[in-house]
Amino acid sequence: MAEAHSLELLVQALRKLPGVGVKSAQRMAFHLLQHDRQGALQLATALQHACKHVGHCLLCHTFTEEEICPTCRDPRRDRSLLCVLENPADQAALERTGAYKGLYFVLMGKLSPLDGVGPKEIGMHKLLERVDTLVDGVREVREVILATNFTAEGETTSHVISQALKARGVQVTRLARGVPVGSELEYVDLGTIAHALVDRR
Amino acid sequence: MAEAHSLELLVQALRKLPGVGVKSAQRMAFHLLQHDRQGALQLATALQHACKHVGHCLLCHTFTEEEICPTCRDPRRDRSLLCVLENPADQAALERTGAYKGLYFVLMGKLSPLDGVGPKEIGMHKLLERVDTLVDGVREVREVILATNFTAEGETTSHVISQALKARGVQVTRLARGVPVGSELEYVDLGTIAHALVDRR
Ligand SMILES: [Zn+2]
Ligand SMILES: [Zn+2]
Repeated sequence: MAEAHSLELLVQALRKLPGVGVKSAQRMAFHLLQHDRQGALQLATALQHACKHVGHCLLCHTFTEEEICPTCRDPRRDRSLLCVLENPADQAALERTGAYKGLYFVLMGKLSPLDGVGPKEIGMHKLLERVDTLVDGVREVREVILATNFTAEGETTSHVISQALKARGVQVTRLARGVPVGSELEYVDLGTIAHALVDRR
Repeated sequence: MAEAHSLELLVQALRKLPGVGVKSAQRMAFHLLQHDRQGALQLATALQHACKHVGHCLLCHTFTEEEICPTCRDPRRDRSLLCVLENPADQAALERTGAYKGLYFVLMGKLSPLDGVGPKEIGMHKLLERVDTLVDGVREVREVILATNFTAEGETTSHVISQALKARGVQVTRLARGVPVGSELEYVDLGTIAHALVDRR
């Protein structure tokens, strides 16, 4: 009875997507096969292409198809400001405000000891190296703006990074608490983010 | 600035999935690229494989990789009973009860004139042909059990099919209303479905 074998494999594969249970996966599979096979094939190609071509920027760790991402290469960005974020979605939210012209360091995660995510996994070492880089004998980065999410784990991450940077004499600021506590940056309206950026403390 | 081009295409492609908005699609893309590239590639392969191999059973219209699905070929099934359902998920729910041993006809949809889904789109013609098939001079199908969902569209679909079949002198029953009105079969507990099957009217 290996009847809908391909179908079962598809349902199982769709369950790899975050937030997708078995019922949703079934609905997705049926929908694609019944109404949108072209969309299904486009998705397959997009997955393969992204897996092959998307890597991490050597400087800021965000997703990019090049060694150094366009933001890090942009000569118009203020290289004395470095904003530390949890993930590319948060970075995109900050970019959309148009209120920030510095550079980024994307942790691609947050400290979560219970899940085995420690300082090494979020690239703490690389961040410190980056901040310690000298240009003409002085630190290029003058200020690090901590913009991790205002959740318990985001605050912990922010605190740990802050301690390490302050020990090196680096100026560290945090997005102002205009951002509602308990929420995640990518879901906050642009005005609030822009305001919080101006009021950073 | 064609930076995360592959990434944007992936986010767009993920939005083809039913119920997935731009934020969910971004989260899915980031998750796959950051934590599960193997899962992403498996999903790509599963999509391509299913699109290539999964078709519809010539007899019951459900998804299958063969001309005639294993259920329709199974000599132990009671060929005098034909259960009409909206989709393979509902069929799977009914199969899981173990309370039904007849055959199926899967509409792969429901009547929805506003969306351009009429009798032709749900295979009404094929259903009538199927019911009219004679074996040794008599109809093989003795009873058609309507098991469309108990929603407005499901009831309409059931009513229209019922009228057409009764006009041909075929015995038509409907799942008993043990199934809560307004709900969809695939979300109903097995016991309720089994009960509704016994009490069909
Ligand atoms: Zn970069
Ligand atoms: Zn079949």
